[in-house]
Amino acid sequence: MNEIVFWIAPIAAIAALVYARGFYKEMIRQDQGTALMQEIGGHVSRGAMAYLWQQYKIMLVVFAALAVVFAVLAYQFHVQSTWLPVTFLCGGFFSALAGYFGMKTATQASTRTAAAARTSLPDALRIAFRSGAVMGLVVVGLGLGNIVFWFILANLLIPAGDTGETHRMVLITTTTLTFGMGASLQAMFARVGGGIFTKAADVGADLVGKVESGIPEDDPRNPAVIADNVGDNVGDVAGMGADLFESYVGSILAASALGAAAFMHDPALQMKAVVAPIMIAGLGILLSILGVYLVKTEEGANQKQLLDALGRGINSSAAMIVVVSLAFLFLLGMPNVWGIWGAVIAGLVSGVIIGRSTEYYTSPSYSPTRQIASQAEGGAATLVIAGIGVGMLSTAIPVLTVGAGTLLAFLFASGFDPSQMNQGLYGVGIAAVGMLSTLGITLASDAYGPIADNAGGNAEMSGLGPDVRARTDALDALGNTTAATGKGFAIGSAALTALALLASYVEVVRMELIKIGTTVLTLGHGTTVPTDTATLTDFMTYYSVNLLNPTVLVGVLIGAMVAFAFSGMTVQAVGRAALLMVEEVRRQFREDAGILKGTSQPDYERCVAISTLGAQREMVVPALIAVIAPVVTGLLLGVAGVIGLLVGGLSSGFVLAVFLSNSGGAWDNAKKHIEAGHHGGKNSRAHRAAVIGDTVGDPFKDTSGPSLNILIKLMSIVAIIMAGVTVTYSLL
Amino acid sequence: MNEIVFWIAPIAAIAALVYARGFYKEMIRQDQGTALMQEIGGHVSRGAMAYLWQQYKIMLVVFAALAVVFAVLAYQFHVQSTWLPVTFLCGGFFSALAGYFGMKTATQASTRTAAAARTSLPDALRIAFRSGAVMGLVVVGLGLGNIVFWFILANLLIPAGDTGETHRMVLITTTTLTFGMGASLQAMFARVGGGIFTKAADVGADLVGKVESGIPEDDPRNPAVIADNVGDNVGDVAGMGADLFESYVGSILAASALGAAAFMHDPALQMKAVVAPIMIAGLGILLSILGVYLVKTEEGANQKQLLDALGRGINSSAAMIVVVSLAFLFLLGMPNVWGIWGAVIAGLVSGVIIGRSTEYYTSPSYSPTRQIASQAEGGAATLVIAGIGVGMLSTAIPVLTVGAGTLLAFLFASGFDPSQMNQGLYGVGIAAVGMLSTLGITLASDAYGPIADNAGGNAEMSGLGPDVRARTDALDALGNTTAATGKGFAIGSAALTALALLASYVEVVRMELIKIGTTVLTLGHGTTVPTDTATLTDFMTYYSVNLLNPTVLVGVLIGAMVAFAFSGMTVQAVGRAALLMVEEVRRQFREDAGILKGTSQPDYERCVAISTLGAQREMVVPALIAVIAPVVTGLLLGVAGVIGLLVGGLSSGFVLAVFLSNSGGAWDNAKKHIEAGHHGGKNSRAHRAAVIGDTVGDPFKDTSGPSLNILIKLMSIVAIIMAGVTVTYSLL
Repeated sequence: MNEIVFWIAPIAAIAALVYARGFYKEMIRQDQGTALMQEIGGHVSRGAMAYLWQQYKIMLVVFAALAVVFAVLAYQFHVQSTWLPVTFLCGGFFSALAGYFGMKTATQASTRTAAAARTSLPDALRIAFRSGAVMGLVVVGLGLGNIVFWFILANLLIPAGDTGETHRMVLITTTTLTFGMGASLQAMFARVGGGIFTKAADVGADLVGKVESGIPEDDPRNPAVIADNVGDNVGDVAGMGADLFESYVGSILAASALGAAAFMHDPALQMKAVVAPIMIAGLGILLSILGVYLVKTEEGANQKQLLDALGRGINSSAAMIVVVSLAFLFLLGMPNVWGIWGAVIAGLVSGVIIGRSTEYYTSPSYSPTRQIASQAEGGAATLVIAGIGVGMLSTAIPVLTVGAGTLLAFLFASGFDPSQMNQGLYGVGIAAVGMLSTLGITLASDAYGPIADNAGGNAEMSGLGPDVRARTDALDALGNTTAATGKGFAIGSAALTALALLASYVEVVRMELIKIGTTVLTLGHGTTVPTDTATLTDFMTYYSVNLLNPTVLVGVLIGAMVAFAFSGMTVQAVGRAALLMVEEVRRQFREDAGILKGTSQPDYERCVAISTLGAQREMVVPALIAVIAPVVTGLLLGVAGVIGLLVGGLSSGFVLAVFLSNSGGAWDNAKKHIEAGHHGGKNSRAHRAAVIGDTVGDPFKDTSGPSLNILIKLMSIVAIIMAGVTVTYSLL
Repeated sequence: MNEIVFWIAPIAAIAALVYARGFYKEMIRQDQGTALMQEIGGHVSRGAMAYLWQQYKIMLVVFAALAVVFAVLAYQFHVQSTWLPVTFLCGGFFSALAGYFGMKTATQASTRTAAAARTSLPDALRIAFRSGAVMGLVVVGLGLGNIVFWFILANLLIPAGDTGETHRMVLITTTTLTFGMGASLQAMFARVGGGIFTKAADVGADLVGKVESGIPEDDPRNPAVIADNVGDNVGDVAGMGADLFESYVGSILAASALGAAAFMHDPALQMKAVVAPIMIAGLGILLSILGVYLVKTEEGANQKQLLDALGRGINSSAAMIVVVSLAFLFLLGMPNVWGIWGAVIAGLVSGVIIGRSTEYYTSPSYSPTRQIASQAEGGAATLVIAGIGVGMLSTAIPVLTVGAGTLLAFLFASGFDPSQMNQGLYGVGIAAVGMLSTLGITLASDAYGPIADNAGGNAEMSGLGPDVRARTDALDALGNTTAATGKGFAIGSAALTALALLASYVEVVRMELIKIGTTVLTLGHGTTVPTDTATLTDFMTYYSVNLLNPTVLVGVLIGAMVAFAFSGMTVQAVGRAALLMVEEVRRQFREDAGILKGTSQPDYERCVAISTLGAQREMVVPALIAVIAPVVTGLLLGVAGVIGLLVGGLSSGFVLAVFLSNSGGAWDNAKKHIEAGHHGGKNSRAHRAAVIGDTVGDPFKDTSGPSLNILIKLMSIVAIIMAGVTVTYSLL
């Protein structure tokens, strides 16, 4: 194996952080515009930071409490990895740090983007996109950097013992998996809290401002307008970043753990299999940085040209990773290079197809969204029905894509020999890594969206001219498209990551069984196999993880139910928090008539505080459900029930998330389609119906849908770290 | 074994049909009221029959085509039971016959109920309820009668061969299972077609009549009013009847097949295990007839007293079956009597809890529906969001109940020995039979609902006095409660039946493997077992039906997706059909101004024809999807993929159905709560929002939700009858 392969990941991680810093410095140097623009930007920036600190405070309490629980389980009851209390806190800390940097950048960047838009579209795009890239690169840099750090540390500290080198490597990889728990829990708070914040503000601002008082969107007279802009940052920047930080870290760690297990017969091969996903991730970072420089446009570019500009960056990175990863897999000396490479491509292509499918179902350029818009002529009811129908039908392509991608990755990596289950599942892990390899640049295009959106808001509130707003509108529309595809990508990667984590769970169970002295598995018909060489199939037989075992079936049913109940909770949370916001905005209008006349300033801070409070109050219960469900299921139904739960949650959660996100996205764009002059245009009967559909879709697409990504990953990670407790104490 | 036990089922089946005839004759003798009442009743009755014949014509084509396919598969390719072409047509015919009788009775009964309501509440209740009992008893009578007939015929015609008596019994039970296919497919057409018909008419009538023209519900000036009343019959009587006919037949057949497999070591025990579910069903019929006579009330009874009157009949039947079934299980000489009895009770109690939970989440007497109503003050958007939140949360209790019921039935019947999987799964089948044992009377209370609803419509359209309408309103309100609990019961029984069918699938696969000469299963680690004595667990190992096999996982994902895509299709179908109705009603109002003045009669037939056409056009594709999905999955992914598909479809479909039904029911009652004077009452802002919510909920609760019951059962039955094709031709 070539020495250089080892160095790619650390170099790439450092490069990501260096370039992120560079892009940040470049952005900070730009003109901030007029005093009014800076004042508005300051409101948003302070509001976002205030929210973030508040969220971090609550998280600190939850994390501290859980760390104590983990410490007791680890040091008192010896049913927990002794690393967990530390890795857990680190995972949470670095995920939060990435969110902090990303959001700080985004809030600074939107004022400067608006300022640049006064004179130049290309400059505005460059500022907004490279600021988005700060988020993308910080996420992948901190993620991969941490993985490398923990691997090296585990390699140094975990002794060889008398179970041999291959066994030690399995222990190292399953130990580093514990880092995912903190990242996952922080992602849950960021997604759910951010999602509730942003939609409470959005719904509240719209219902009183647009519907009741008839003032336009982003009007500075609306007290909730700053909270709405803050929400874009805490939901779509910090929330999305934490979500993908977790997918990124989880997929790499899971793939490495599966690699260690798949090649236990040969220490040299095992090492390569563990390194491969980390290497691919490193290559992806370097190519993402390259891709960022390819995103540029010209003055007066239309929507298609702008989309092409982004596409150039993203697609070039993806195309290059296809070529480069093959070369480096050869350099690494992997066995079955073509199969592993096939798995990388299966993941990459799946991500592209899901993104395209999302675009088709939610863009006003295609028939599904246009049909929803035409149903607005029958009123709000038929529009809502149509949107739900489209959302449900839109689940077909993503599910079939992930299904085909998973099967192909499995078949490629197993050399088309289904009995090689370990190798095949390693391929599924590699596919997840492949899909996320160019996350540096795909996440940049996601984080770009809210920056452009806020730049538009700033331009509107600062009263900049129509030509400036035309530029920010163009950038904003581009952001809406990337937001939709970004959501599809986040869901798809969460599903693949959860699949990979599922297989890792069984590897962790193996370690736990060995720890408690179960050295032999009895498989029925008098067959026994040693625990440390048993195949994954043997574990399935040992625990009866088959689909006629009622324990498994009940687990699957509960998993499906948890996905729905969790969504119900988050949807209701938005409703409750939005109602508080509605009351506050009505109160301000009532008590100070000068606000609507524009003579006195509304109390923006109060609205930010209300959204913050609502989000904080509502985010804890859904988050805890994701933590508690696998623990309780494990204690009652054992390993078989837990696997059932994870599969039920994964399948229903994935499909439900696609449905919710696409329904919401399609309603949003059906409204925009009508506002563009179709079916009577603005303020028509159809438009009023479309506003209702858009509002219904808000919590669908920005709270419940994205939160489900985290639910399915967090339940898997909790199952993994609680494997010791399940194996030792389960009832059935 | 006592001789009498054998005679219970045929006697009960005949008794059911005799009493059904008696109740029908009794109803026909009643006064039909004024000429106007008879005319209106005639419109509804003719419309319903016209729809039914149209549906049967299309079904005839589809059934004939499929029968040919089955005949070719059976006689040409020898990969299909030679019985199927005949049993398939019979299953469809008798299911349709039950629907025909039930609907003929219901349409005749509503005029007479309205006529009786002119003088007496008790008389009106008696007529309506006993007419509902005609449906209930015809369904169970024809269902059980057919089962007995096919068992006897199979017993006579299937030779002993050289594989022994116990093997022959497995063959007999798996052969009779094919009867379920026709019943299931006819149920699909009845539920989907009826569901689209009724909601297209309802939504169309409401949008133009109530919302646009401001005329009250059931106003004779509304051209769609007759179609709306017809819809109640074709959807809630014929559709619900076909749904439960299938659950009833499917659960009994599945339990018998599982019994034959579970006791293959002992022919005497095996016979008892096959007979037990049939016997319990027979006892349930006799007790249901008894229960019907307990339903009576007094003049001036309030809602609670009316509910108690119904409850007396249903609960007495349920309580008696608990006692009587224990006695007869002893008489039958079943082994593990207490365990089997425990399974019966687990099923019965689960049904009751699900019904109660449905009532809690959808009745305006409890907080969930009231909270939805209070959200109407924020407008349609917050109301819709709240209803979706409540519906999603309401999935928890039914899922946990079915989960607990399944596990307990399994543990009881297996004597708390999880390795006795065959016995345990037989217990799950028995639980499904237990839940459905008193179907004769529970279905009576379902079919009662639309009769009372139509009686109210007739009273309104005939201009009867307010005291008459007070009586029909009381009966109608009672019907709304029974409709909600009936829906919960239909979903719960579908889930349990599908679980039992899942295990039967593997038994059918065993028969198919033996047929193609696979006499030995290789299980890995050098273990082999003979196919005809292999346990269900062995089959799971042989086919790798475990949750790490990507084939299974992809199957689960596809199953979950099919449930959503199928719902999306049916929801959109209602939207499209409703739009045609809206246009027709608008056209009639526009072209004849006399209609709204009340001087000329609208063209009712035209609206019925439009709903009929819409339903016919839209019902075929969703129905075919349910047929095609298991076949294609089987050909591509094999047995493991099919089982994954069934479990994915079952889990997501069950949860999704509960969500859709309960959201829809809760919106409906939130509207009624507001109409009762809360939050501003009728014609307030909140009421307008609630009407939108109710309209969104219409296809949820009456089309997509109930159709999912059939989807999960039909996919299982198709998998069973296509097992030969899957085993012989699958790719993976």
